[in-house]
Amino acid sequence: MTEAVKDRVIRVPVELGERSYEIRIGHNLLPSVGPAAAELGARKVAVVTDANVAALHLDTLRRSLAEAGVGISEIVLPPGEATKSFRHLEEVCAKLLEARIERGDLVVALGGGVIGDLAGFAAAILRRGVRVLQVPTSLLAQVDSSVGGKTGINMRAGKNLIGAFHQPSLVLADSSVLDTLSPREFRAGYAEVVKYGLLGDADFFDTLERDWENVFLGGTARMSAIATGCAAKAAIVARDETETGERALLNLGHTFGHALEAAVDYDGTRLVHGEGVAIGMAAAFRFSAELGHCSTGDAERVESHLRAVGLPTRVSEIPGEIGSAAHLLDLMGQDKKVKAGKLTFILVRGIGQSFIAGDVPPESVLAFLENWVRR
Amino acid sequence: MTEAVKDRVIRVPVELGERSYEIRIGHNLLPSVGPAAAELGARKVAVVTDANVAALHLDTLRRSLAEAGVGISEIVLPPGEATKSFRHLEEVCAKLLEARIERGDLVVALGGGVIGDLAGFAAAILRRGVRVLQVPTSLLAQVDSSVGGKTGINMRAGKNLIGAFHQPSLVLADSSVLDTLSPREFRAGYAEVVKYGLLGDADFFDTLERDWENVFLGGTARMSAIATGCAAKAAIVARDETETGERALLNLGHTFGHALEAAVDYDGTRLVHGEGVAIGMAAAFRFSAELGHCSTGDAERVESHLRAVGLPTRVSEIPGEIGSAAHLLDLMGQDKKVKAGKLTFILVRGIGQSFIAGDVPPESVLAFLENWVRR
Ligand SMILES: NC(=O)c1ccc[n+]([C@@H]2O[C@H](COP(=O)([O-])OP(=O)(O)OC[C@H]3O[C@@H](n4cnc5c(N)ncnc54)[C@H](O)[C@@H]3O)[C@@H](O)[C@H]2O)c1
Ligand SMILES: NC(=O)c1ccc[n+]([C@@H]2O[C@H](COP(=O)([O-])OP(=O)(O)OC[C@H]3O[C@@H](n4cnc5c(N)ncnc54)[C@H](O)[C@@H]3O)[C@@H](O)[C@H]2O)c1
Repeated sequence: MTEAVKDRVIRVPVELGERSYEIRIGHNLLPSVGPAAAELGARKVAVVTDANVAALHLDTLRRSLAEAGVGISEIVLPPGEATKSFRHLEEVCAKLLEARIERGDLVVALGGGVIGDLAGFAAAILRRGVRVLQVPTSLLAQVDSSVGGKTGINMRAGKNLIGAFHQPSLVLADSSVLDTLSPREFRAGYAEVVKYGLLGDADFFDTLERDWENVFLGGTARMSAIATGCAAKAAIVARDETETGERALLNLGHTFGHALEAAVDYDGTRLVHGEGVAIGMAAAFRFSAELGHCSTGDAERVESHLRAVGLPTRVSEIPGEIGSAAHLLDLMGQDKKVKAGKLTFILVRGIGQSFIAGDVPPESVLAFLENWVRR
Repeated sequence: MTEAVKDRVIRVPVELGERSYEIRIGHNLLPSVGPAAAELGARKVAVVTDANVAALHLDTLRRSLAEAGVGISEIVLPPGEATKSFRHLEEVCAKLLEARIERGDLVVALGGGVIGDLAGFAAAILRRGVRVLQVPTSLLAQVDSSVGGKTGINMRAGKNLIGAFHQPSLVLADSSVLDTLSPREFRAGYAEVVKYGLLGDADFFDTLERDWENVFLGGTARMSAIATGCAAKAAIVARDETETGERALLNLGHTFGHALEAAVDYDGTRLVHGEGVAIGMAAAFRFSAELGHCSTGDAERVESHLRAVGLPTRVSEIPGEIGSAAHLLDLMGQDKKVKAGKLTFILVRGIGQSFIAGDVPPESVLAFLENWVRR
């Protein structure tokens, strides 16, 4: 890696009036968490993380905070989607109170999307809102969950059904920290990178088709891909902070994906979030093609790129039983994206051309699902 | 009661830009909940209430909603402060999801401050925010907790430590519903009415001294007192929605009061919130007098009015042990109103002249408390 890469920090602004903040993307950024916390005026922080990430990266953070003279308490949770629960939310809240975290202090979310969503939500409701610094350590969290202020937990009835909008004060995305991520998790996060190409940037998708191996390897290509993803998300969020319109485009592949995650009961050994999104994006293209919105060629091109990087595109690739089409439809029905009995899907007219279809009749979804679950 | 009173509805606007709403105060307003829900475009509502209120008033609501063609599900909780807990928050969220309450629907909070705070908080975090219609049934809730958007639950570490700002879409305060309130609860709510006089409106305090018996009896005097309280709160909230400044004045008496509630472990048989506030306001005046900010005469006048209506003004009136001054100070320290180790108190220069004292040294509070707990 050249010096230029090592020292370069890409800054992506998220423009939200008085809630504006910056995403910093660079190699070896973890040691800058201490100075950043001090810069934000925090006398002490509570780091929320999971056991996997703690074992690999907490020490670096600890040292950086100590050097910057910032007090630290640590809340280490079990890894996995099941941690995004009421029980762990209560635990984090209680521990933040024990640590006497107040309005001037900071919650630091060090981890993947699970930690970012849970710690961000705890920060949102602690004393009706304390600041949070997002330090995403998974690719998915760096390009997606740490940006835009959606936080929350899961309920039996579905994912992310309880939560808050709570923008971070800063996002520090250390792209080298992804070197310790398992290949499976890296690939899962990559699905969200591809999503930005598919939903609105055909050129970016072209680049990824050509250059994905370098993104997986690290270096400049990885930093650029993360920055492009963040910039795309930041632009959409700036125009529609609380998802009353356009922001829904970010859910491309997610309505299908969430239903699959629910169908496996959020069992990460069978399906991780990004894999659900990959299968879901493939489904969104197929469904769009069936409805006559886009060409079958585009749907095939999407599937072939996802397959090339090793992502699943079919329900049959998920180990074990998934259940009937009707069951999946029901799982979609309890999703947040329901409005007056009609289903909202993000569909496409082609690569880079997504749109919100607000009144998809449950029947046509069911007909599609009947075939889809058997593929 | 004259026709004029029966038909009069006082409307107090709360000006908060796109979050603006109205408080309607009148006799026999419960039957207007159905039309109001329909007016807000809700196809169905979930009514959250407690067992006491359900037994007395749920039927009226049910009928009114049915007549307006609005669907209803009911969530009835045990009465009492202990209901403002994580456990019941989870229960309410799960039941709201079961009832498939979505963004276009409404949560109706029918009850005192406990229900308003809990149901309001659940609405704030359900699908990251659904609308809530506050139907306060205690005097305290009508003049205070239902207005202004503060919602939340208690933690072992203190009251209201977890919560959100979530403004209601409408507040319907039925002043005749207070006829079923116990005299003790009515008096407790009256303490918050007095608060508005003490913190910024000496004329209102004069009126209350003269006319309090009519407020207790009902009719026009009660409606006016509620409206004056609501208008005072609305004005302060409009200027400082998220309590970065002036809104803290509403905490007159509350720092002391909360510590007492915590000291009795939120045991409502020993002390209800408004009683804590009454003792707390008496304390705030005494403490202000001791510090030379206000006359002893004013402190005595406040105590004498509170005593006249049957409210406690001294720690010794609370049955059982309260604990040491140091213990109370510690309970204050974990309160939200701490900033960098210095205590913030709302003090007074006289009746109607409160101010925020942001750097009260813990020592002078301790010295005051040493005497105060023995009075
Ligand atoms: N808030 C949003 O806008 C948003 C958007 C998309 C997804 N999400 C949420 O994000 C979650 C998924 O995020 P995720 O995929 O990051 O899951 P995750 O947080 O569970 O992380 C995946 C796994 O990787 C491990 N890990 C993380 N960083 C590591 C590193 N640097 N080295 C080694 N191991 C590491 C974790 O311990 C975990 O086992 C889901 O709950 C989803 O709902 C939220
Ligand atoms: N959110 C805010 O801004 C704010 C402000 C002040 C107080 N609060 C909160 O409000 C709560 C106290 O409110 P509260 O005093 O109304 O307590 P509450 O809700 O417990 O009600 C008091 C009692 O009166 C009963 N009750 C209510 N209405 C009745 C009626 N019409 N007839 C018969 N019984 C009735 C209830 O069942 C309960 O037993 C505290 O938790 C406090 O923290 C919140």
